[in-house]
Amino acid sequence: MRIAIAQINSTVGDFDGNVQKIIDITRRALEEHDAHLILFPELAICGYPPMDLLDQDFFVENNERALHSLQHGLPPDIACAVGYVSRNTMAAGKSLVNAYGILYGGTLVFQQTKTLLPTYDVFDEARNFESAKSWNLFDWMGERIGFAICEDVWRETETPGTKYAEDPVRRLMDAGITFLCVPSASPFYANKHSMRLKLASRIAHRGNLLVAYINAVGANDSIIFDGRSFFLLENNVISANSFEEDLLLIDFNHGELYSIAGRDVKTVELSSASPEQSLQTGGVLLQTGRSVSEASVQNAPLSLTDTKEIEDALVMGIREYMNKCGFKKAHLGLSGGIDSALVAYLAVKAIGAENVTAISMPSRFSSQGSKDDAAALAKNLGCGYEVIAIEPLFTAFLDALAGVFKGQEFDTAEENLQARIRGSLLMAFSNKWNSMLLATGNKSELAMGYCTLYGDMNGALCPIGDLFKTEVFALCRDINKRENKKIIPQAIIDKPPSAELRPNQKDEDSLPPYDLLDKLLCLYLFENLSAPEIAARGFDKTLAADIVKQVARSEFKRRQAPPVLKVSARAFGMGRRMPIARKIYECVFPF
Amino acid sequence: MRIAIAQINSTVGDFDGNVQKIIDITRRALEEHDAHLILFPELAICGYPPMDLLDQDFFVENNERALHSLQHGLPPDIACAVGYVSRNTMAAGKSLVNAYGILYGGTLVFQQTKTLLPTYDVFDEARNFESAKSWNLFDWMGERIGFAICEDVWRETETPGTKYAEDPVRRLMDAGITFLCVPSASPFYANKHSMRLKLASRIAHRGNLLVAYINAVGANDSIIFDGRSFFLLENNVISANSFEEDLLLIDFNHGELYSIAGRDVKTVELSSASPEQSLQTGGVLLQTGRSVSEASVQNAPLSLTDTKEIEDALVMGIREYMNKCGFKKAHLGLSGGIDSALVAYLAVKAIGAENVTAISMPSRFSSQGSKDDAAALAKNLGCGYEVIAIEPLFTAFLDALAGVFKGQEFDTAEENLQARIRGSLLMAFSNKWNSMLLATGNKSELAMGYCTLYGDMNGALCPIGDLFKTEVFALCRDINKRENKKIIPQAIIDKPPSAELRPNQKDEDSLPPYDLLDKLLCLYLFENLSAPEIAARGFDKTLAADIVKQVARSEFKRRQAPPVLKVSARAFGMGRRMPIARKIYECVFPF
Repeated sequence: MRIAIAQINSTVGDFDGNVQKIIDITRRALEEHDAHLILFPELAICGYPPMDLLDQDFFVENNERALHSLQHGLPPDIACAVGYVSRNTMAAGKSLVNAYGILYGGTLVFQQTKTLLPTYDVFDEARNFESAKSWNLFDWMGERIGFAICEDVWRETETPGTKYAEDPVRRLMDAGITFLCVPSASPFYANKHSMRLKLASRIAHRGNLLVAYINAVGANDSIIFDGRSFFLLENNVISANSFEEDLLLIDFNHGELYSIAGRDVKTVELSSASPEQSLQTGGVLLQTGRSVSEASVQNAPLSLTDTKEIEDALVMGIREYMNKCGFKKAHLGLSGGIDSALVAYLAVKAIGAENVTAISMPSRFSSQGSKDDAAALAKNLGCGYEVIAIEPLFTAFLDALAGVFKGQEFDTAEENLQARIRGSLLMAFSNKWNSMLLATGNKSELAMGYCTLYGDMNGALCPIGDLFKTEVFALCRDINKRENKKIIPQAIIDKPPSAELRPNQKDEDSLPPYDLLDKLLCLYLFENLSAPEIAARGFDKTLAADIVKQVARSEFKRRQAPPVLKVSARAFGMGRRMPIARKIYECVFPF
Repeated sequence: MRIAIAQINSTVGDFDGNVQKIIDITRRALEEHDAHLILFPELAICGYPPMDLLDQDFFVENNERALHSLQHGLPPDIACAVGYVSRNTMAAGKSLVNAYGILYGGTLVFQQTKTLLPTYDVFDEARNFESAKSWNLFDWMGERIGFAICEDVWRETETPGTKYAEDPVRRLMDAGITFLCVPSASPFYANKHSMRLKLASRIAHRGNLLVAYINAVGANDSIIFDGRSFFLLENNVISANSFEEDLLLIDFNHGELYSIAGRDVKTVELSSASPEQSLQTGGVLLQTGRSVSEASVQNAPLSLTDTKEIEDALVMGIREYMNKCGFKKAHLGLSGGIDSALVAYLAVKAIGAENVTAISMPSRFSSQGSKDDAAALAKNLGCGYEVIAIEPLFTAFLDALAGVFKGQEFDTAEENLQARIRGSLLMAFSNKWNSMLLATGNKSELAMGYCTLYGDMNGALCPIGDLFKTEVFALCRDINKRENKKIIPQAIIDKPPSAELRPNQKDEDSLPPYDLLDKLLCLYLFENLSAPEIAARGFDKTLAADIVKQVARSEFKRRQAPPVLKVSARAFGMGRRMPIARKIYECVFPF
């Protein structure tokens, strides 16, 4: 049996476009490769995540209409397996199901619905879907095929806070499957792919199965799909490309796996860390798999993993958001600091230098170095570059407020004014040229509220808002290595970070050193530790309490932040839902 | 048996404060009224909704510690029933339960957990909690008492999209309860209370039961709790106050209900509309219970219900948000228009005129009428009043952008600049004086994106963001009636709405008339209808498509809006989760 995985990029709500794409690729798989079965990702017909569009009956009707037109538009000689939303026909529960069906010869010949509905982090599936209560096999050309949809196989990893009662993979194995298909829309985060391989490998070995892991690719809002679909049998794996649409084919014959169309068959290499550990700890590039302690801060440098996949993810995340929102051009404020340098680089990679404008807006506090660095970077990137001095605007604001602020000292009011003047200029540029503004904040800043709401937080998307400052540095260093030149000027990487909103300001005047800060933030954000628990790991009590308090106090800013591209197991945004008006109890030491 | 309902205002995460409050009120109920049983709301120990604080083990530990200190701090001669978070001791499922227990004589003598976990609108309970699988009775002084926690009784109303399999009230009735307690943290929206009475009455009659409905009061972020707890037996109801903490007592003796402490016993009056209808349709003051059609737009005025409860809810919502966030002072931009007038009035009622500053920021396009109206309103309210002309700032921005915008016409870029200048001035005021900025946008504006992101959308809270423009007018008219004077100047109510961002601008140049717009918005937002479905109700096709498209296109603005005080069945914010990057399929006519 020749089997294809169609790793496609669906757009949420684009029923016609998604169906046409499914038809085109299916034809190609049949005509060019004689495929017998083609597998599409979870919810490929409607896109993932559909969120509260599911409340609209019209959405579900469109799904049904799309499935119907697919039924009649597909070539009849190939079985096409695809995900869609369907109605719950059981007596009780949520009114919809997350369904996966097989179309063959113009008919829906098989359907399996999803059992384990992720309802944590960015996932809200229990909000709309009802769980499967039955598990069926699809007998096809001598194979007994079972379908476990995305989370259905993740039961293995003990999602924090959830112990699933049902085990759909076990059900399917008990029923005698020989081939397990795992259609997914599995959001990317750093190092996640090795967990998928490990999971699939464990299941394949346990059941002596062929496993097809069919992932979506692309991005929707803050969620990125990295693709990297694969077939796995014993220790052999054949993989699709990452971060792009792909059609992957194999021949599965008498229990043997053969590559088609020149793909490599690789031996599975699994890291030693268990999936459970990787799930629960650490930032993107901060060490995972073991607890962070004071000792590791002092003795060990950040242990980098794969910065290239982070870069690829962010580039695709920017491109997809712009495509799906209908923007061709983007711009950003270029301060001469490292965050905006990284965002400019990523934007240029995503949409081309000719579509990116970097805008330098120096104030009385901007150093000559920063101005020079911004100009040098723009030149290196070859993007558009504008300079608008904000001094006259800043003076005009100080004059306008002179009466109201009479006798008051220069403080955060005046500091933030500069950021808000810049934010207003950038939005004027956006309105005038229909160009999308990219925010340049990182995760350390967003965590601590070390950023100006309605100022430098402005933007339609915040590409690096899930990277700690230390990770921003690491990524920039690696980019220069990969580019084999100082495309990001070395001075930008070397100089101490500063907001330049008052004379001689340095970030470390207000914040702990970033390598220390980021480690504590990891403990609070990823391990959900309180200040007393962080202190128990050997950190300073006052420091732990101050950081926890500051993160909690800044919740109101993050609630109004643009979507952040998720590249870690826990990003700010929909995946972390915190009350604003509350007692910050977790910075209080009980004894 | 003398039974008390303690309708308290818990703060999320304030374990010590909440426990002390519970102890104090329990002492009062015992010492002043000889109560035998006192009932507190759902999750009274930790506050509702705790959201992702539940991911912190420290939160759950604090809960346990608080329950323990409550156990030892309460007087021993009264049974105290209270809600808290507990760990799931069953073999599988989410790791926590939404629990309700009874403390008596220093011991936890009874526990019931919640069965139906609302996971729709603002609710995310399936994210953290596991459902009850058993239902117990508490035998106390001759009564057999059962506990159905909040949603456990709402099964009756057929929540859209959900048909619960389990029926906890039926279970308890089958077990022979004589008295049903319904501890709740039931978010307010217009007309909801009559649904609660109807539900309770139906259950009381069916089971021949005494029903105690114990609601929280106060507000947390965008969710308001109106209180109005009650005891209900046959057609008699004894109620606690609305929108304030209260201690309500009855004597229940040989199946008869007696009032204590001078409360009225009222006869239940139920509206004719079924709870199901009220749940699914309409805006706050827009007619509920029947479909909106073109005919009703043309022939019927808006049928107002109770604007007073909306006003009380918003006043409490502002006050609570400020209290719990630690703000004493608030300010807002006063344009002379009706939205900012209403917000100023509500703010003054919430925190006193001496703590509110209204700031007028006229531009070259501001009419003399608007300036006069703003001044007159501030005088009527007696609040602080500042005037900062933005002309020099606007000119300075135009100069700064002259190079970049060379040869371009005046358009939304320049319009929005004015709003952003004002937004920056208001935030400078906030930073300088630690005063909380109130946003003044309404629901019609937020829906259509007829507002400036980082401009007039700025604020820590958006009090009237869940009121359509027509509802803003209705509320202002009723306020003047209730105040028995034109506290909101008549000119503000009478003049045609305008953003005054270009010469002679009127809202109706860009938007349909508000009475028509708001009806169509209701159909899209509350009934989840698509443009074709709205057109099928007799509205213009092009108009329906334009409105639906505009609402969907503005999602990116709402994602960055401040929390909106929820007063309708579906407010913008956490209760409506829409993708930004997507195809807007619901404005397309399929045929």
